[in-house]
Amino acid sequence: MRQSPYLPNRPLKVAVLGSSGAVGSELLKILEQRDFPISELVLLSSERSEGKKIIWKDEELVTKKTTKEEFKNLDLVLASAGGSISKKWLSTIIDQNALLIDNSSAFRLDKNVPLIVPEVNGSEVLNHDGVIANPNCTTILLTLVLAPLNKLSTIQRVIVSTYQSVSGAGQLAMEELKLLTEQYLQGNPQKSEVLPYSLAFNLFLHNSPMLSNNYCEEEMKMVNETRKILNIADLKLSATCVRVPVLRAHSESINIEFADEVEPKDALEELKKSPGIEVIEDYKNNRFPMPNDVMGRDNVAVGRLRTDISQSHGLELWLCGDQIRKGAALNAVQIAELLIPKK
Amino acid sequence: MRQSPYLPNRPLKVAVLGSSGAVGSELLKILEQRDFPISELVLLSSERSEGKKIIWKDEELVTKKTTKEEFKNLDLVLASAGGSISKKWLSTIIDQNALLIDNSSAFRLDKNVPLIVPEVNGSEVLNHDGVIANPNCTTILLTLVLAPLNKLSTIQRVIVSTYQSVSGAGQLAMEELKLLTEQYLQGNPQKSEVLPYSLAFNLFLHNSPMLSNNYCEEEMKMVNETRKILNIADLKLSATCVRVPVLRAHSESINIEFADEVEPKDALEELKKSPGIEVIEDYKNNRFPMPNDVMGRDNVAVGRLRTDISQSHGLELWLCGDQIRKGAALNAVQIAELLIPKK
Repeated sequence: MRQSPYLPNRPLKVAVLGSSGAVGSELLKILEQRDFPISELVLLSSERSEGKKIIWKDEELVTKKTTKEEFKNLDLVLASAGGSISKKWLSTIIDQNALLIDNSSAFRLDKNVPLIVPEVNGSEVLNHDGVIANPNCTTILLTLVLAPLNKLSTIQRVIVSTYQSVSGAGQLAMEELKLLTEQYLQGNPQKSEVLPYSLAFNLFLHNSPMLSNNYCEEEMKMVNETRKILNIADLKLSATCVRVPVLRAHSESINIEFADEVEPKDALEELKKSPGIEVIEDYKNNRFPMPNDVMGRDNVAVGRLRTDISQSHGLELWLCGDQIRKGAALNAVQIAELLIPKK
Repeated sequence: MRQSPYLPNRPLKVAVLGSSGAVGSELLKILEQRDFPISELVLLSSERSEGKKIIWKDEELVTKKTTKEEFKNLDLVLASAGGSISKKWLSTIIDQNALLIDNSSAFRLDKNVPLIVPEVNGSEVLNHDGVIANPNCTTILLTLVLAPLNKLSTIQRVIVSTYQSVSGAGQLAMEELKLLTEQYLQGNPQKSEVLPYSLAFNLFLHNSPMLSNNYCEEEMKMVNETRKILNIADLKLSATCVRVPVLRAHSESINIEFADEVEPKDALEELKKSPGIEVIEDYKNNRFPMPNDVMGRDNVAVGRLRTDISQSHGLELWLCGDQIRKGAALNAVQIAELLIPKK
């Protein structure tokens, strides 16, 4: 058992597990940008990616193969290497009295593991016992916007269709999208290897495994994780997740039913004062959030709030957020920051 | 007043108005492929596109500037040159006792003008007085799928998010998407001229003019045209229209509420036997419609039918259809075919 839910009050020995992936690289960037208190940074990777040199804070670091030895004296592990890797090393991490902030879905629905979006349910972060889960990218973006609106009137039902960038499928998928598109433009045949189908000027329904209710895993992550984060166990939510030929920012088209009427202007005011959110809404000039607006940025952009003409008490809106940043790496570092004792 | 709603029972003198655009070119292709009975084909265009040589049925035709003279003795005008052009020439066409099948939105909501999707409300085609309207692309695809389902149980409410290809913005926009993408891949800045913003690995909410209810014209076309075609005046429908970096096929994510419960398998059976529809649905292999499946093809592809987990009596589904073909040119030619007297 940990003595305190907080991280030690000194520069920390931190490991990034999965350091050579898209989210891992972004984690390193964010730790540097936010001047996270680090005494030593250990880059862990698979055997395949071992020995990769990475410049961090003007220092050359080398990725190491993940072994039990490497976890010694660690304070914090930021993991983005998939669920099986996180599960494999969890007991080693906990034995070290270190904290795991895990980007996989392995522990998200475990009722003993907090699932945190700092701006939404940051107050629950202390309820951990060595592991805190980082939600799925689409869920982070969605809950960040739903939570402030839920203060105005209880949300009854949400219908969402996503426009998910290829970064969610990893660094290799991003490179493949560029390659396939180049092949298309040169009039050559496209053969996808990372993606299930070519995304060059094409799109497809999210290819995560299908569940027995005919929703895919990605869609049910949105349902179950949103319920847990917003603490509305019976929230009605259905999602259609779609992969589009965009590089690293997700968009979501969201239809909300509230218990009472919510005026778009009140919703807008609430969103404007909410942390992590930026409103981009100019009806006169037809200017609303686009993936290009948020690429590489921390804030989630929201706009196009309007009274739903198809129901009472309904609002429709649109958001874009950087999948790698707020949708993954930034949120994980923000969780860690909540656990740094305040001076 | 026309003596008969039918076209004359002989090869026809046909004009294509807007013959050099994306839909115009496809109209020519379809007239040839379907062996439409033509005695003479006149290609009309703006002054700017005058004199363009086009091969049609191994014959070289030359586009002519649109003047009153050119409408002489015409039987049929297929127009795809925008609403103001169609309005300008309507009286000339009617004076000739010719029929205008118009692809613009100019006459669609006129209660004296039939708005036709042949598979859905083809029986209303005879109620014209010289002009028949071709619906908006997204509406054609949507109603083609909603109409068979409405037979199973009355549709109460529809929420749709679109993934619209750039072809809807015209031939130049298609070329611009390729150019902008090439510039992106070469690391050069992208400057859009036809599109309001770069679509290279980006997307944006449909940029048609905003209306007073904060829905854009494109979205309200879907609402109003769907109500007229399905003949459900009070159908609750809300749409979010989005332009995505896809070349010529639209996709739609559709959430439907019925009066009674509709089983996905019954819906699937109904769709399978409906003309103009192809079901692509393989849950085991995670294979559903994609834009690439329908590009250049007549059928609209539907799949991913599932019971909506967020409501009773709900179904969710997904469709893809070629915007230029069934979404525009094919539907217009099919309307004309309904008016050819059967031998």
